[in-house]
Amino acid sequence: MSALNVNENELQEIRSSFVDEETLLPVIVQDDESKEVLMLAYISREALEISLSTGRGTYFSRSRRQIWVKGESSGNRQWIRAVSFDCDSDAVLFRVHQEGAACHTGEKSCFHHRIS
Amino acid sequence: MSALNVNENELQEIRSSFVDEETLLPVIVQDDESKEVLMLAYISREALEISLSTGRGTYFSRSRRQIWVKGESSGNRQWIRAVSFDCDSDAVLFRVHQEGAACHTGEKSCFHHRIS
Repeated sequence: MSALNVNENELQEIRSSFVDEETLLPVIVQDDESKEVLMLAYISREALEISLSTGRGTYFSRSRRQIWVKGESSGNRQWIRAVSFDCDSDAVLFRVHQEGAACHTGEKSCFHHRIS
Repeated sequence: MSALNVNENELQEIRSSFVDEETLLPVIVQDDESKEVLMLAYISREALEISLSTGRGTYFSRSRRQIWVKGESSGNRQWIRAVSFDCDSDAVLFRVHQEGAACHTGEKSCFHHRIS
C-alpha cells in the first residue's frame, strides 16, 4: 500500500464531479503493460480517495451497494500506475498492474465476448 | 461504409441487454494501433446496429438525446476494427482506427487530465 503522487488541481476538478456521496462515475481499467482494456467498473468519491491513498484499484459495487477492493477475495489485485479523467470530467481511467486475471471467469479481460 | 462481420450468438447476447430503446450502455473506444483509450461514450441499441452496419463509430448523445456519428462535423471519424462486450453484458469495447483527434479539444485522447 502506498499513496500515489497527486496533481491537486486535477484532483479538485474530478472531485467536483461527485456532487454527492451517491454519485458514481465509470472507470475504465487498462493493463499498463499490455494496454489491454481489462474491465469497466464504477467509482464513488470515497472509492477514488481510497484508490489514490492505497494505490489499489478500489471501486463501488452497484449490485452490493458497497466499496469493493479488487482482488480482496480473489487475490487478483490491481496496483494503480496512473489515473486520469476525461474532458467532460465524467469518466476515469486507471492504468494498472494486474495480478492474475481481471475477470471473475478467469479470463484476463472482462471484454472477451467478441461480436466482430 | 462497410458492414462488420458479426458473430450472431454474441450479438443476440448484447442485444438482450438493451431492454428498451432508452437503454444506454457505456462504450470504451480504444485506438486499435496505439492501444490508447480515446474516449468513453454511450450507445443505444440503434446506435450499435448502425455502428455494426456502417463500420463507423456511432453513439448516443446523452445531452442532445440523439444518435451521433463520430466525426460527422469534425471529420475525425472512427473506423471500427473490433467490437466486444464484457462478462456482465453491460459495457462495450470498440477498437477503432481514429482519424485525427478523438477529443473535441484537439487532444488525441479525451483522457488527458492526469491526476497521478
